[in-house]
Amino acid sequence: MDLWLKEMQLEDAGIAMTYKVKETLVRKKTQFQDLAIVDTEVFGRMLVLDGIVQTTIKDEFVYHEMISHIPLFTHPNPKKVLVVGGGDGGAIREILRHPSVEKAVLCEIDGDVVEECKKYLPEISCALDDPRCEVFIGDGIKYVKEHKNEFDVIIVDSTDPFSIAEGLFGGNFYKDIYESLTEDGIFIAQTETPFYLPETVKKVFSDAKAIFPVTKMFMAAIPTYPGGYWSFTVGSKKYDPSQVDITKIPEMDTKYYTPEIHKACFVLPKYVQDVISE
Amino acid sequence: MDLWLKEMQLEDAGIAMTYKVKETLVRKKTQFQDLAIVDTEVFGRMLVLDGIVQTTIKDEFVYHEMISHIPLFTHPNPKKVLVVGGGDGGAIREILRHPSVEKAVLCEIDGDVVEECKKYLPEISCALDDPRCEVFIGDGIKYVKEHKNEFDVIIVDSTDPFSIAEGLFGGNFYKDIYESLTEDGIFIAQTETPFYLPETVKKVFSDAKAIFPVTKMFMAAIPTYPGGYWSFTVGSKKYDPSQVDITKIPEMDTKYYTPEIHKACFVLPKYVQDVISE
Repeated sequence: MDLWLKEMQLEDAGIAMTYKVKETLVRKKTQFQDLAIVDTEVFGRMLVLDGIVQTTIKDEFVYHEMISHIPLFTHPNPKKVLVVGGGDGGAIREILRHPSVEKAVLCEIDGDVVEECKKYLPEISCALDDPRCEVFIGDGIKYVKEHKNEFDVIIVDSTDPFSIAEGLFGGNFYKDIYESLTEDGIFIAQTETPFYLPETVKKVFSDAKAIFPVTKMFMAAIPTYPGGYWSFTVGSKKYDPSQVDITKIPEMDTKYYTPEIHKACFVLPKYVQDVISE
Repeated sequence: MDLWLKEMQLEDAGIAMTYKVKETLVRKKTQFQDLAIVDTEVFGRMLVLDGIVQTTIKDEFVYHEMISHIPLFTHPNPKKVLVVGGGDGGAIREILRHPSVEKAVLCEIDGDVVEECKKYLPEISCALDDPRCEVFIGDGIKYVKEHKNEFDVIIVDSTDPFSIAEGLFGGNFYKDIYESLTEDGIFIAQTETPFYLPETVKKVFSDAKAIFPVTKMFMAAIPTYPGGYWSFTVGSKKYDPSQVDITKIPEMDTKYYTPEIHKACFVLPKYVQDVISE
């Protein structure tokens, strides 16, 4: 018997990616969503929330390296970092590779995600038990509101906006993030696919731009995300992430990120530029 | 009734992309392959050969712009260009936008591809009737052998290597291409996905490198190709495509290519560098 996972990509569902499954490791309804971790033939174990692939053993490195190292190698001395969402722990793992970081808080709304990822995706969640990491199970919107002028970097590592994560995209949340950052703080969020969802990307980018003095978008190639090409938006109070002096970036053993990629990823194809230009 | 096209991606078939189909416009067994042009909900009309998506109305611009403008804006004065494969005509359309080009030959083995694309994909095939274009139906390997020292640019726009196009990847064919180029000629080929097929990419790049004084790889983000992130290999007798003076590139109305992308696309993620490094 062949088992296949069918992922209806995006809301409109005229395309779907399918993965041959070797084994379902866990499947449960949590308080917030339908959670599954399955072992697939091509991508190994993967976390699936409400039917959408979130992260996989084989390609998680792209997303987690890029969402972490771009802001952390832009800020000259990041000490305190907050991840909103990201219950798999992959961003925390990359953040804690930066020796300047004294504390990394993970604020994940769904405790089951953290628990099951610790159990079934240890390669990704391995740093969640690091003494510098604090795991807080709760609402990111509330958490950010209650912590003013505290974080050097805030990473919004959320699911798609058509989900419980809707409130993490744009407007008021970005204002609260601005206030939760220190005076030279940097914010980054995964901001979906400009190819399939230009209107979503446009709105989110424009919301960030209305609040942060420096707002830039970069792209990364992630095989398991729709279209394979994902946008990230950086909002910064002071430092321009696309203008870092890459000769000063220390060596780090990575699989996607390099100092040269740090520059090149901000060079956008024409249609992506068009999506975010006024 | 919902109709879906299921594309078994790559040979191993542990992943498959599926597209909701509105209408099948043509389906036939040609002398060489199973040809279909279907109209899909998300990507519009698409050409499918032996079950593999080749090009679609919605995302063809990425592939055709990048395989054409990178070599043609690298060569200072390209007059005569050969496309091996590329029966949809998309590369020819982009090539003929360069005013220096006097003649563009399309050498496609399967006349049915040309015929059906002219009929059902006019947005892509529109330049095949241009007086500067010569369409030759025949074997590209033989054609290249018989035309020495003739082309400024040769573009290998083929299907995957596990198909009738197998002979267009590597070794002896690249030697014949070298001889078919003028003394400062440039060759480019689509060279598959380093994420899924690292061994294929490694071999093809190393074969090119053994023959051409300058060999460089670049990447482009193509939603309908497996992994969404595709490699192209450039072999050049004289000009380095990654070192062009982009201030001299004239303006052109494009949807993916820009002079800045021309530089940035050669900056490879670490795992891609690793695939092609000795």
